Amino acid sequence: MTAMTPASTIKDAGQITQTLASYVVNSELEEIPSEVQREGLRSILTWIGCAIGGSRHKTVEIAVASLLPFTNDRSTTLIGRTERLDPLNAAMVNGMSSIVLDFDASQYKKTNIHPSGPVLPPLLALAEHQTVCGRELLHAYLLGIEIEGRLANEIFGRPDNPGWHVTGAVGPVGAAAATGRLLGLSTEQMVYAFGIAATQMGGLREMYGTMCKSFTPGRAAQNGMLAAMLAKNGFDSARAPIEGSKGLARVLMNIAAPESLVANLGTAFEISYNAYKPYACAIVCHAAIDACQRLRARYQLTPADVRTITVKVPPQAIELAGNPSPQTGLESKFSVSHAVALALSYDDVAPKHFSDQLARDPLLVASRDRVIVVPVATMRKDQAEATIETSDGRTLSERVDHAIGSLQNPLPDAGIERKFRQLSEDVIGAERSQRLIDLCWSLPSLLDVKVLIREAQAE
Amino acid sequence: MTAMTPASTIKDAGQITQTLASYVVNSELEEIPSEVQREGLRSILTWIGCAIGGSRHKTVEIAVASLLPFTNDRSTTLIGRTERLDPLNAAMVNGMSSIVLDFDASQYKKTNIHPSGPVLPPLLALAEHQTVCGRELLHAYLLGIEIEGRLANEIFGRPDNPGWHVTGAVGPVGAAAATGRLLGLSTEQMVYAFGIAATQMGGLREMYGTMCKSFTPGRAAQNGMLAAMLAKNGFDSARAPIEGSKGLARVLMNIAAPESLVANLGTAFEISYNAYKPYACAIVCHAAIDACQRLRARYQLTPADVRTITVKVPPQAIELAGNPSPQTGLESKFSVSHAVALALSYDDVAPKHFSDQLARDPLLVASRDRVIVVPVATMRKDQAEATIETSDGRTLSERVDHAIGSLQNPLPDAGIERKFRQLSEDVIGAERSQRLIDLCWSLPSLLDVKVLIREAQAE
Repeated sequence: MTAMTPASTIKDAGQITQTLASYVVNSELEEIPSEVQREGLRSILTWIGCAIGGSRHKTVEIAVASLLPFTNDRSTTLIGRTERLDPLNAAMVNGMSSIVLDFDASQYKKTNIHPSGPVLPPLLALAEHQTVCGRELLHAYLLGIEIEGRLANEIFGRPDNPGWHVTGAVGPVGAAAATGRLLGLSTEQMVYAFGIAATQMGGLREMYGTMCKSFTPGRAAQNGMLAAMLAKNGFDSARAPIEGSKGLARVLMNIAAPESLVANLGTAFEISYNAYKPYACAIVCHAAIDACQRLRARYQLTPADVRTITVKVPPQAIELAGNPSPQTGLESKFSVSHAVALALSYDDVAPKHFSDQLARDPLLVASRDRVIVVPVATMRKDQAEATIETSDGRTLSERVDHAIGSLQNPLPDAGIERKFRQLSEDVIGAERSQRLIDLCWSLPSLLDVKVLIREAQAE
Repeated sequence: MTAMTPASTIKDAGQITQTLASYVVNSELEEIPSEVQREGLRSILTWIGCAIGGSRHKTVEIAVASLLPFTNDRSTTLIGRTERLDPLNAAMVNGMSSIVLDFDASQYKKTNIHPSGPVLPPLLALAEHQTVCGRELLHAYLLGIEIEGRLANEIFGRPDNPGWHVTGAVGPVGAAAATGRLLGLSTEQMVYAFGIAATQMGGLREMYGTMCKSFTPGRAAQNGMLAAMLAKNGFDSARAPIEGSKGLARVLMNIAAPESLVANLGTAFEISYNAYKPYACAIVCHAAIDACQRLRARYQLTPADVRTITVKVPPQAIELAGNPSPQTGLESKFSVSHAVALALSYDDVAPKHFSDQLARDPLLVASRDRVIVVPVATMRKDQAEATIETSDGRTLSERVDHAIGSLQNPLPDAGIERKFRQLSEDVIGAERSQRLIDLCWSLPSLLDVKVLIREAQAE
């Protein structure tokens, strides 16, 4: 990697985009620390699991059914499915699958983002049309995440976002960076790719809670992929698409000089902010689950041993997940009481446990009725304390200061693998799931990532 | 058409989108005045001419070359070309072709827009996949233009647009309305289609002057088409995508209650604002061309008869087109002097006359060197006055108060046809051009518009 221009010396219009584009074009994988690369593998494995797990969601079913009659190109894999589509639409659908469960890796630095949805699908789609080795895929992925994350945090890391869905607004440029790297763009072409992607920004928060929530990152994946494909063939765009007076930063958030976009480029890495949810429910429930699972494991408790369980949680847990008697699987994702009951009943609290059936299961209902939830104003959202009064009169207590999966207490590789299996085994079976896990960890040694993609489709 | 809710009574979130969607679903062609329908035909004919004329532009060449390797679907016509693509990408490319010369019908009510680029391509693409009669096409087109124009003027009809390319920001919803009408969406599906389209808004003015200027309307066409296709199959989105607190109007331009969007719906028609440029050069040159052509015709002048010609023009003509000695075809589009020289030399000032060759043609250069351009502060941009001193000592003068093609002096049908031929004959030949003209005027009687589409492709 060439030395970066310090942000304070940037004056010329276009210098910021040029610097970012030049970095993406000239970066070498060896210059990226091994722990950062490792985080990339964890993130890719998680993403594939989420895409497989989400691939049968109604949102995805409708998208596939809508597109199949309007393209007869079947060149590209839809992860977790048997149908195939053209590469641009496959990238879109795979992006949707990966985010539809809201369970993929997330980042919070100055704003929230699920970064992978726009970035990885174009790389996998492209890898079915040209030979891409594992190192190239990993490298392009990390570069895309880097650009997307910088734009997200430096443009949207402020309290006054009027309603942009950040992933849709900056995802296309991240996707263009990653795709453009695989396509071997020159720096000038990369600048143009950023611009073609930037002018396709989109995404309204008004869509949260609808199918468009996952459509936006999927479309962002396609937008960025298209941008890089066009730039590769000589399509041009503005020379300062990010920082120009009518460019992305100014038009979206009235930012005139987004110089912080290039700070520490090549030495600080956005993917370091990746966090992995172990449980498919509201994040404010996670510490309580951890505390209960520790109690259950340490004292070998069953639900029958519990007379009452008092759970101290941050106030947000009551606001976001205070429902004491959820009636559906979706509602049960927003219930601390139900999460605690599940944690006392199962070793692994898996996505499948947040089902309509279990929400009304008599034993779980009996168990959650013994849960007392107490808000504590001083607790952070990754903290909880659980105190059990047992049937035989003991008082057992466990406090969690950082839930598993938070930045301070990262989900270990074993947890990443467990999460993957929970998402994929019901769709592609245990054997293929294990093969995919092995292939992902060994990604840097793969000569052609098609072997991995083949395992990720359904039969 | 059912009676519209008066804007003043609209209180519920979603009522504005519902009203627009309901109008699109329930409108009947008979309720649209015949002169409005006729304007639709003039607009469609103009659009097809521009799409044919622009179909060999480098911007389009690159887009087609980029897409061909990534889809093997050849079901849908690219206007003016021999290649074919899948319907979604064909809609995008045709939208680009139609706008790349910046010569298609334009509207100015409260903001500038070339309305047809996003709206017509999805309809033509769809008409190759289902039987669409001419009346259906015309009707869907008018409805799409109506929705797009209302959004453009009521959201962007203010001086503080930070840099949105309006066609990209509202074009997808117009395209979704038109496509959704052809697909027979229910009102609920139409609301969702508007939302799926709205969240794909895009377009930065930073891209003006680059290939992305025409890419944006092309992509808008595809975005809206995709939105309607998804909604048809049950894909949902927000219920108040336009007026919601994080919806299109609020997020783009901080408009909280865009109630004017539904004013006079069904009685006032956006397409009434269509204006058609007769000359492929800056609009501020047009009145001067008209004045010179009138002088030339009335007195049967040739360039040799002209000793000097003094042209009074509005100040903007100097600002935008003050170049006295353009060296390229592109530069010659921004030169009053050159425009006047062309007007004295040719009966029809056609797009082909703005060529590199003629910009340096000795006779034209000699002619334009005799042009004296005088700015007059009180003149509007569609006014001009030309005064010729002839070689034999006469002084001949002509004043134009409204250039041909302005709203006050509309381009007559014969001018629409002449413009069409100027754009299309070099690409598809004179015979097919004439057949297309005839087919367009008789569109309402066509049982299947495929006959028209077939004539618009190249052989």
